[in-house]
Amino acid sequence: MIDTRKQFTGLIAAPLAPMDRHGQLRPEVVGKYARFLHRQGVKGVFLNGTSGEGVSLRRAERKELTQAWVEESPADFSVVVNVSHTSIYRSQELASFAAEVGADGVSTMSAFFYRPASLERLVDYCKGIAEVVPNTPFYYYHIPVMTSVDYPMVDFLKLAGEQIPSLAGVKYTKENRVDFEACRLVNQGQYNILSGCDDMLVSSYATGCRGFIGSTYNFAAPLYVEMMRLFDNGQVGEANQLQNYFVEVIQVMAKSGDYFAAAKRVMRELGVECGGVRQPLTPIPDSEFDSMMKELEGLAFFEKLEQLSK
Amino acid sequence: MIDTRKQFTGLIAAPLAPMDRHGQLRPEVVGKYARFLHRQGVKGVFLNGTSGEGVSLRRAERKELTQAWVEESPADFSVVVNVSHTSIYRSQELASFAAEVGADGVSTMSAFFYRPASLERLVDYCKGIAEVVPNTPFYYYHIPVMTSVDYPMVDFLKLAGEQIPSLAGVKYTKENRVDFEACRLVNQGQYNILSGCDDMLVSSYATGCRGFIGSTYNFAAPLYVEMMRLFDNGQVGEANQLQNYFVEVIQVMAKSGDYFAAAKRVMRELGVECGGVRQPLTPIPDSEFDSMMKELEGLAFFEKLEQLSK
Amino acid sequence: MIDTRKQFTGLIAAPLAPMDRHGQLRPEVVGKYARFLHRQGVKGVFLNGTSGEGVSLRRAERKELTQAWVEESPADFSVVVNVSHTSIYRSQELASFAAEVGADGVSTMSAFFYRPASLERLVDYCKGIAEVVPNTPFYYYHIPVMTSVDYPMVDFLKLAGEQIPSLAGVKYTKENRVDFEACRLVNQGQYNILSGCDDMLVSSYATGCRGFIGSTYNFAAPLYVEMMRLFDNGQVGEANQLQNYFVEVIQVMAKSGDYFAAAKRVMRELGVECGGVRQPLTPIPDSEFDSMMKELEGLAFFEKLEQLSK
Amino acid sequence: MIDTRKQFTGLIAAPLAPMDRHGQLRPEVVGKYARFLHRQGVKGVFLNGTSGEGVSLRRAERKELTQAWVEESPADFSVVVNVSHTSIYRSQELASFAAEVGADGVSTMSAFFYRPASLERLVDYCKGIAEVVPNTPFYYYHIPVMTSVDYPMVDFLKLAGEQIPSLAGVKYTKENRVDFEACRLVNQGQYNILSGCDDMLVSSYATGCRGFIGSTYNFAAPLYVEMMRLFDNGQVGEANQLQNYFVEVIQVMAKSGDYFAAAKRVMRELGVECGGVRQPLTPIPDSEFDSMMKELEGLAFFEKLEQLSK
Repeated sequence: MIDTRKQFTGLIAAPLAPMDRHGQLRPEVVGKYARFLHRQGVKGVFLNGTSGEGVSLRRAERKELTQAWVEESPADFSVVVNVSHTSIYRSQELASFAAEVGADGVSTMSAFFYRPASLERLVDYCKGIAEVVPNTPFYYYHIPVMTSVDYPMVDFLKLAGEQIPSLAGVKYTKENRVDFEACRLVNQGQYNILSGCDDMLVSSYATGCRGFIGSTYNFAAPLYVEMMRLFDNGQVGEANQLQNYFVEVIQVMAKSGDYFAAAKRVMRELGVECGGVRQPLTPIPDSEFDSMMKELEGLAFFEKLEQLSK
Repeated sequence: MIDTRKQFTGLIAAPLAPMDRHGQLRPEVVGKYARFLHRQGVKGVFLNGTSGEGVSLRRAERKELTQAWVEESPADFSVVVNVSHTSIYRSQELASFAAEVGADGVSTMSAFFYRPASLERLVDYCKGIAEVVPNTPFYYYHIPVMTSVDYPMVDFLKLAGEQIPSLAGVKYTKENRVDFEACRLVNQGQYNILSGCDDMLVSSYATGCRGFIGSTYNFAAPLYVEMMRLFDNGQVGEANQLQNYFVEVIQVMAKSGDYFAAAKRVMRELGVECGGVRQPLTPIPDSEFDSMMKELEGLAFFEKLEQLSK
Repeated sequence: MIDTRKQFTGLIAAPLAPMDRHGQLRPEVVGKYARFLHRQGVKGVFLNGTSGEGVSLRRAERKELTQAWVEESPADFSVVVNVSHTSIYRSQELASFAAEVGADGVSTMSAFFYRPASLERLVDYCKGIAEVVPNTPFYYYHIPVMTSVDYPMVDFLKLAGEQIPSLAGVKYTKENRVDFEACRLVNQGQYNILSGCDDMLVSSYATGCRGFIGSTYNFAAPLYVEMMRLFDNGQVGEANQLQNYFVEVIQVMAKSGDYFAAAKRVMRELGVECGGVRQPLTPIPDSEFDSMMKELEGLAFFEKLEQLSK
Repeated sequence: MIDTRKQFTGLIAAPLAPMDRHGQLRPEVVGKYARFLHRQGVKGVFLNGTSGEGVSLRRAERKELTQAWVEESPADFSVVVNVSHTSIYRSQELASFAAEVGADGVSTMSAFFYRPASLERLVDYCKGIAEVVPNTPFYYYHIPVMTSVDYPMVDFLKLAGEQIPSLAGVKYTKENRVDFEACRLVNQGQYNILSGCDDMLVSSYATGCRGFIGSTYNFAAPLYVEMMRLFDNGQVGEANQLQNYFVEVIQVMAKSGDYFAAAKRVMRELGVECGGVRQPLTPIPDSEFDSMMKELEGLAFFEKLEQLSK
C-alpha cells in the first residue's frame, strides 16, 4: 500500500524539454541537466508538464525523457511524470511506462478538450488513469489557466480520496489561497499539496507550505533556497525583497514574447543547452534574446545566482 | 494549383466514431455508415472532429477511419479529415496520410493547450500543418467553445490567405453571424465558409449559406433537406416549424447527460451500430436511454424521419 | 388585465440620449427626434437603455426623457422605458413614473453589480420592480454582454410567467438563436420576443421574428424596411446583400473608437442633433469623425438612405 | 498638497449598511458600530463599498452614512468613502460631499456597466471624479470579480500617477500576488496598497503588507490582530492555524446563501444590530440562520472572539 502521507518537500523543478534549435528532442542532455538541478538545491522533477512541452511531444519522446530522468537522477531525487494525453489509452500507457521504469509518481491534468462536466466525471477520468498503476502515487495536476477545468480541489480530494487509493496529492497551479489551504487541512494533512505558483513562494512558505513545483526552479533555485533560509532566520523583509527582485527577473523574461523560449535561453547561459521550443509554442531566434540578456545582466541576475550557488 | 473557389454545398455530416460498447473502435462499420448517409441526402463527411472523438483516438485508429471513409464513400462524397493533435508532428503525419489516401481536404482547429497568443501565431501554426500537403485544400476549424481560441475569422482569412496557398475555407462553429457573413464576402466569396451550427440552418440558408457541417446530419439529414426544400418553395413558416421541431428533438437528446452517447444510441436505432463513447466522454449504459427513446417516439421522430426519407 | 399577447412588431429604435457637446442632456430635441423616426418607418422606442446611456443619466433626466418621448411621440408609437438602476427603489420609482405618464411598457435588465446567483433570484428581482406597476406590460431586458448575467430565457419565461402577471416579453440581445426560438414557442407564442441583434435582422425575419429593437434603427430604418420588403417579395439574395452592405457601414462606425459617439455624429448628419456622449463613454471630439464620414460617403450611405426614405 | 506617502496601516473594516429587517437604512446605529469596531482594534472604515451595499443605497442614504461615520468615528479613525455610481455626476457629488464633511479619502471602482475599453479610459474616468476633490486622497478600488474590469494595477499606478495628483493608493481585491507586490514597489512604495483579501492576511503580512481592508474585520478583528501578533512573535505556525480556523468560520457563513446577510446576523450577535439586506441581495429571514449560529457555536467562534477581545 502506498503511504500517501510521505510528503515531497523542497523545490521540484518542472524541467524544460531539451531540444536543438529546430525543436528536435535531445534526451542526451538529461544527465547534465539532472546534475545541474541537484547542485542548485532542487529535490526532484515534475516531468513532461506544461513547462516540459509534454503534450507537444511524441509518445516515444515522452518515454525517452521519462527513462532518462529516472536513470540519470541522483538517488535522492524524486521524479513525478505527467501523463496527460488527449487519448486516455495513451495516458494509461505513459503511466504504466513511468511506473515500470521506477518513477516516484504519476500525474495528470483534467482532460482539456472534452472537459469533464462535473467533479464526479473528473474523478472518474483520473481514476481511469491512476488505476492502471495502483502502486504508484497519483497526483492531480490542477492548472485551470490551461485546462479551463476548475473545481474546488478540497472537494476533489474528498471524492477522489474515496475512489483512488493511490491518490497522493495535488500540484496546485492557481492563486486561490483559500482552497489551497483547505486542501492542506484535509484529513489532517494527508495529501501532498504542492504549490505551483513560484512567485508566491514566500507567502506560501509563510503559511506552512513546504513543497513547491515550478518552472523557475530550473534556473533560479538558489534564490528560492535563500528566501526560505532568510524566512527561517526571521529575516522576513529580506526574504520578500528577494522574491520581489525575482519578480522583476521574470517580467524581463516574459517581455521576450515566449516565456518558455526565454527560459531555455537562460538555461543555456547556465550551461544546460535546451535549444528552442516546438510549435505551437513560438520559436524565437536566439538573436532576439539579446536585449533580454542585457536586462538580466543589468539586474545582475547571473552574478547573484552564482554567488548564492556557492 | 488548388481551386479554392470550388465550394462544398449541402449537408456534410461529422460522423461519430463507430465503437463497441466498451469504446473500442469498429472501422468495419464505415461502409454501412457511408451508404446510410448517402441515402439520407448527405454530401460528405468531416472526419475525426469533435463529434468523431478525433483527439480521443489513437493515431492508428484515426488513420484506419480515414482510409475506410475514403475507400467506402460513394464517388460523389467529399471526405475532409480533421488532423488536430497536441503534437504538431502528428498533425502533419495525419495530414500526409489523409492526402495520400485521397481525402478531399484536411482541417485543423487551433492548438488548444498552448493557445496561440496572437492571430499571427495561429496562422503560423496552421501553415505548419497545411504546408506538408500543399495540394490538398485546407480548412480551418473554428470552434472556440472547445479551444477557447477566438479570433475574428474575417481577419484570419485575410492573413492566412496570404500565407497558406491551399486555404479553402472555414468550418465555422460559433453563433457570431456578423463575422460569419463577413467571411463569406472576403474576396467576392473566395472561401468556403461552412456553417457548423445545425440549429441555425434555416436562418443561415436564408442569408445564402449553402454548405453545412454538423453532427445532427448523421441522423436527421432528411429533415434538413426538407427544410431547404420548403424554404426554396417559399414556405418559410413551414421550414421554421420543422427547424423548431428538431430543436425539441435535440433537447430530448441533450437531457440524457451526454449528447454524443445519445447520438450513437439514435444511430443504432437507424441501423448503424456506433456503440458507446470513449472517456473522457461519459460512457452511459444503453439502458439509461430508455426514457429518451420513449420521448423521441412521443415526438414521432423516427416516423417522421422514415416518411421524409422516402 | 394586461393582454400579454399584444405583440410589438416592426422596428423599435433604442434612442440615443440627445446631449450637447459636453454631455449635458437636451430633452428639447425629442420632438424632432420622434418625428424623424416616425418618418423613417420606426414603430416605437425602447428608452433609456444601453444606447440611451440610461444608467449614466440622473434620475430627473431619465424622467424628463420619459415624459418627452411619451408626449412627443406620434399616436401609434410605442414607448417602452428601461428602468434599470443599481438601487431597486429607484427602479421602482422610475417604473411608477413611466406608468403614470402613460408609457406602453417598462423594462429592466438584471441587477448587474450584485448579480443574482440563481434564476429564482433574478425572477424575484424583476418581480420586485414589475409589481409596482401591475397594469403596465413588463419586458425583461436580456443583455449578458453588459450584465454578465446569462440564464436561459426559456427558463426565465416559464418561471417569471408564474410570478409576474404583467410579463409581456423579452428584449433579447444575445446571438443564441436556439434559446431565442425556444422563447418564441413558449405557450404557443404568448410572449413578445424582440430581437436585439440588428445585424441578424434578415436571418431572424426568415425564422418568423417580427419585432426588433436596436440602436441602428435610429439612423438606418429605411434600409431595414427595405430588407423586409425584399424578403417578403422573395428577393432573399437582395435582402442579404443589403444586410451585408449595412454590416460594412457599422464596421466603419465601430472603428471610430466609440460606437455610441459615432451614432450621434451620424444622427447629426441626418438633422437630429444628439451632441456628444457622457462619461464613462468616451467623449470624442467631432473633428475625429472626419475620416468616418468620408468612408460613409465612400459607401454612399447617406445617398442610399435618402433614396430609400422616399 | 496631499502627502500620498501617508500610509493607512492595520485593519480597515468595510462596514455593512445597518438596516432594519425590511432593508430600510438605520444610520442611527453608526455611533455604536464605530465604537464597537474601535474597541475591537479596527483603525478605520471603507464606507459604502461592496459590503456596504453602496450602489444599492439612495444618494441621500449614502450621504447620511458618510456624515454619520465621519462624525461618530473616534478621533484616530480613518474614513474612506466609496463614491461609485453609474452616473459620474453623482460620483462627483458624493465625492464633494465626503470631502466637505471631512472624510480622509474617497474611492471609486471602475465604471462597471460601460466598462472602460482601455487603461487610459479607466484613468480618465477616475480623474473625472478625483479632480473635483483635489485635496482629498484618492484610492482606486480594484475588484474585478464585481466589475469585470481588470487591468494590471502596476500599470494603472504609473499612468494615473501622472494624471491624478491626489492618487494615494489602491484597495486591491484580487488574489494576484505578483501584481500586488509590484504595486507596492512603485516609486519606492509611494502608494498605499491595501489588501482586500481577508483570507490571505497572514501571507500578505508575511510579505510586508501592513494595510488591510475587508468585511470580516467587522466581526473578527481580534482574531486578525492576534494573527499579526503571533507572526511578529515568530509563531508563524500558530498564526496560520488561526487563519485556517477562520476560513472554516467563513465557510459556515457562506453556506447560508448570502454572505452579507450572514455577516449582519453575526453583527447582531455581537450587539450591533444591522438588520437584513436590501435587494438585489437576497433577503433571508433570520430564522434561516439557526443552523449557521449552531455551527459557529460548535466552532466556539464567539467564545474565542470574546477571549481575544479582552
